[in-house]
Amino acid sequence: MAELMTIRWSKNGITMIDQTKLPSGLDYIHITDIRHLWDAIKALKVRGAPALGAAAALGVYLGIKDSKAKTFDAFAKDVEKVIRYLGSSRPTARNLFWGLERMRDIAFRFKDKPIPVIKEKLFAEAQKVIEEDRSVCRKIGEYGAKLIKNNDTILTVCNTGILATIDYGTALGVIYRAHEDGKNIKVFACETRPLLQGARLTAWELDRKGIDVTLICDNMAATVMKNGNISKVLAGADRIAANGDTANKIGTYSLAVLCRYHKIPFYIAAPVSTFDLSIKTGKGIPIEERPHSEVKELFFKEPMASARVKVFNPAFDVTDHTLIAGIITERGIIKPPY
Amino acid sequence: MAELMTIRWSKNGITMIDQTKLPSGLDYIHITDIRHLWDAIKALKVRGAPALGAAAALGVYLGIKDSKAKTFDAFAKDVEKVIRYLGSSRPTARNLFWGLERMRDIAFRFKDKPIPVIKEKLFAEAQKVIEEDRSVCRKIGEYGAKLIKNNDTILTVCNTGILATIDYGTALGVIYRAHEDGKNIKVFACETRPLLQGARLTAWELDRKGIDVTLICDNMAATVMKNGNISKVLAGADRIAANGDTANKIGTYSLAVLCRYHKIPFYIAAPVSTFDLSIKTGKGIPIEERPHSEVKELFFKEPMASARVKVFNPAFDVTDHTLIAGIITERGIIKPPY
Repeated sequence: MAELMTIRWSKNGITMIDQTKLPSGLDYIHITDIRHLWDAIKALKVRGAPALGAAAALGVYLGIKDSKAKTFDAFAKDVEKVIRYLGSSRPTARNLFWGLERMRDIAFRFKDKPIPVIKEKLFAEAQKVIEEDRSVCRKIGEYGAKLIKNNDTILTVCNTGILATIDYGTALGVIYRAHEDGKNIKVFACETRPLLQGARLTAWELDRKGIDVTLICDNMAATVMKNGNISKVLAGADRIAANGDTANKIGTYSLAVLCRYHKIPFYIAAPVSTFDLSIKTGKGIPIEERPHSEVKELFFKEPMASARVKVFNPAFDVTDHTLIAGIITERGIIKPPY
Repeated sequence: MAELMTIRWSKNGITMIDQTKLPSGLDYIHITDIRHLWDAIKALKVRGAPALGAAAALGVYLGIKDSKAKTFDAFAKDVEKVIRYLGSSRPTARNLFWGLERMRDIAFRFKDKPIPVIKEKLFAEAQKVIEEDRSVCRKIGEYGAKLIKNNDTILTVCNTGILATIDYGTALGVIYRAHEDGKNIKVFACETRPLLQGARLTAWELDRKGIDVTLICDNMAATVMKNGNISKVLAGADRIAANGDTANKIGTYSLAVLCRYHKIPFYIAAPVSTFDLSIKTGKGIPIEERPHSEVKELFFKEPMASARVKVFNPAFDVTDHTLIAGIITERGIIKPPY
């Protein structure tokens, strides 16, 4: 079985798995234009906070590699234009902006070098973002796996695995590492409406790795907890405020509240790049609202609600830090008080 | 706008709205054979605990009206056979069995009468079940509406309206009555995976009645509560144990726990026929598990999870009586201790 790589640079462009085609087909797309990259991010062909960080870094290089700028000022304008454009694709994921800012910093650090050299430095930085993610996820897995006991059953939401990162995962990375360590683990995957990343991506990944996975609808999590079947809940993060409040896929907050009631520990797994220390609490985190058609029209490929019916479709929610037992990062597990 | 009637006797058979066709089309089907009725119940063409009570009563009459039995013993065997058969369609809804048992009682009460007379009595009883439901729902609405304040925003799950009863509803009946009383009400409807009764039926009904409704995915309810948007949660019931533990559509228990955390009152609305006093607590309520394809295959009309992935698909969950602020019935509101 070939190892997967979610996103990488190849043939003068970005090659990525088209995640909207899973689980029916494992298709790759090749992107040579940042407008196509923007569309791919918006349509969730690539998604997952760490993978978006890589997409951002590769995207900045893609956007400036053919820049005709002769001076640094002109070049910097091109860089800023690309960064602004890619940053407009999705507002919540911190790692997207982190990737963009890292590239801006590199451009300015080498401002006195010739433009072709700055371009080389930007390419090298994007590759470094990718290599770092591979290493960071493995460290998150290493720290997190210490929390996992043999015969644990872990509930998770959305997709935080290979497909959310370069090739390993954050919350699923913890599960992969525990599995590699020989621990017997069962997983319940919440399907994660409206776009079913849990069903389409997480269940597919875990099954591919030979891990025992059971798919449930999001509204079944409470029953599974009540039945005494869940040892821990592990989720990822899109942005973490300075006080530990964590924005993640819609439904995460609900699971955290259900964990509190059922006395089940609830953990976040995320790289340090997900922290946004400029935001004090979860109230400051911008929450993306996505098209109503995601809720109303996809099911059965025919209308699932009358055309006039209003929809509220927030893509993320914020989990209060008081509900989080620990945040697993590549530098160790952060425990309360945050 | 024509008034809807979910199920009724007409033209020597049962006419019902095919609820699997909503909201795209308002189609009626005519059933003249109990095997078709069994299939319609199993496929949720008719669903909702009170409507299933009516389907059961009409179904018994449909099943025995052409009985060739000459003696009561032979006739009683035919009745029992029909009751056993229809009772095998769905295990959780108390009202289904209540409807069947009511019909059995009538047959035995008139055992000394000629068979044609017993048949007439059974037909009259089925009509009585229907008329009683219409009246009971309006009384539930009357009692429940007293709890609703002007400008309340109510969150609900599954469908507990016209389509779950004959023509009014239980939890939605409360909302209809408050609306008729001139109260300004907003409703959030949880879509109710896997079969989306909230999106397909509840949002459609409420919109048809001119009530302000916003559709959300089930995993968004916690966020809407956290945002301070919900005054009350109203749900229906499929079976209520003697201690008040309530089985209802999967996801209901989750909402009740979320209500407790957010200090929002959580109410059940159901006719007295939903109580099953032979069952002491929720642990004794049988929970129907439905086909895995409901979760895995419907979305996009293509596989949403790998074929090998396991699924857990309970159709109902049980809400502990400790989480229920009151049970609204046609005889008044039952408050804790139950």
